[in-house]
Amino acid sequence: MKKKKKVNAAILIIGNEILSGRTQDKNVAFLSNWLNINCGIAVLEVRIIPDVEKIIVENIKLLSKKFNYVFTTGGIGPTHDDITAQAIAKAFKVKYGFHQEAYKILENYYGKDKFNDGRKKMAKMPIVSKLIYNPSSAAPGFITKNVLSLPGVPSILNSMIENCKRYLVKGSKVHSHTTNLFTVESNISKELDKIQKKYKGFVDIGSYPFFRLGKVGVSVVSRSSSKIKLRHVNKDLTKLIKLKKINIFDI
Amino acid sequence: MKKKKKVNAAILIIGNEILSGRTQDKNVAFLSNWLNINCGIAVLEVRIIPDVEKIIVENIKLLSKKFNYVFTTGGIGPTHDDITAQAIAKAFKVKYGFHQEAYKILENYYGKDKFNDGRKKMAKMPIVSKLIYNPSSAAPGFITKNVLSLPGVPSILNSMIENCKRYLVKGSKVHSHTTNLFTVESNISKELDKIQKKYKGFVDIGSYPFFRLGKVGVSVVSRSSSKIKLRHVNKDLTKLIKLKKINIFDI
Repeated sequence: MKKKKKVNAAILIIGNEILSGRTQDKNVAFLSNWLNINCGIAVLEVRIIPDVEKIIVENIKLLSKKFNYVFTTGGIGPTHDDITAQAIAKAFKVKYGFHQEAYKILENYYGKDKFNDGRKKMAKMPIVSKLIYNPSSAAPGFITKNVLSLPGVPSILNSMIENCKRYLVKGSKVHSHTTNLFTVESNISKELDKIQKKYKGFVDIGSYPFFRLGKVGVSVVSRSSSKIKLRHVNKDLTKLIKLKKINIFDI
Repeated sequence: MKKKKKVNAAILIIGNEILSGRTQDKNVAFLSNWLNINCGIAVLEVRIIPDVEKIIVENIKLLSKKFNYVFTTGGIGPTHDDITAQAIAKAFKVKYGFHQEAYKILENYYGKDKFNDGRKKMAKMPIVSKLIYNPSSAAPGFITKNVLSLPGVPSILNSMIENCKRYLVKGSKVHSHTTNLFTVESNISKELDKIQKKYKGFVDIGSYPFFRLGKVGVSVVSRSSSKIKLRHVNKDLTKLIKLKKINIFDI
């Protein structure tokens, strides 16, 4: 079997409402999970930035060079603060204007009478972009070079995500295994460090404290593109659990 | 009255569990809201990065120069993947080791018998740092130059936040006003653009679609450090609402 290569991505959340704390972002968790499970693409960086053209342009330039793909969310609606499409055109120095296919989709959706200036704005984007179809509210996202632009509203973004697939090269999926222990981190930190060192480069082990049913616990999460290596880690972890007489919390 | 200056901050979320989508971040919204309301500090950028020393060091160097304050969350616990303190020491080229005061706090909290190596690790940090006390689980956060390091677990972070205040210079608070309208963005985009242009530089106006009770709506959010300018915008907005015969949604 040919070994799949590692494919990565960054997420660029564009929106004052997320930065100000007014709106709780939900797109990072959704996109990261979806990209890993469905495409074997690992998200390696996320940035949240304001609706300021200069800042969007800078970040698009930088992130599109640094990662295989960049996903932007937000700023592609009909109002004055929706400036993502224009900023992406500037970043790549490509023409910004009415995208013929997008224009037709929107005109057809709203009908000629109700296709006002605000709605027409949603057909404006880099004219070289390819569309990411939107089954829930018509206004399409778009891909420009390696940058995929999606809306900020989670339910609409979610409905469009399958239409991104055709543009993505798949990588090797990262598998993960979680064990929830009724203990504290400091009780296992030394041994966990040893296990991590043994599998360094193959398996990433993380430990995360939690509170549940009035008790404290630790989730130990192992992540690897190799299921075999993951099983080895789990064996070592099982030994540690027995040795320390730790109870497992089944969720 | 002396006009307060603008004070800004960045948030650096350190943690594979957030990047992978396993854990939903809640610290950005909490920190941004708290900083604005209590300190008049505006968060202008957020980055989420993995538990990789080189990447943490690079980001600390860059963000600490670019913003008045940097808040890091995550990576200050007792396990092998907690490397924030060491990375900050590297970024600022200051000595990393046992912090005397932190050591005493933790030794006192756990008792000499139970103060094992994992727990001792939580007393290791840049030795020049000042502590951010932790009322819920003892292990302190710390401030190194303009970088404040807090834990990743939201309930613990929240319990420590008031102890950050002493280290922060306050800025001018940003006030905001939200009006929820039963309309669609494209119905008001043209007029909203005009209002935004009229108050450019003084008031930021954002519009955000929502779905509630089976209806679509738009939240129009105005943000400004001037309450008077905010009232002017609201007057213009009220005129627009009457003109277009739009219903207001009271929450």
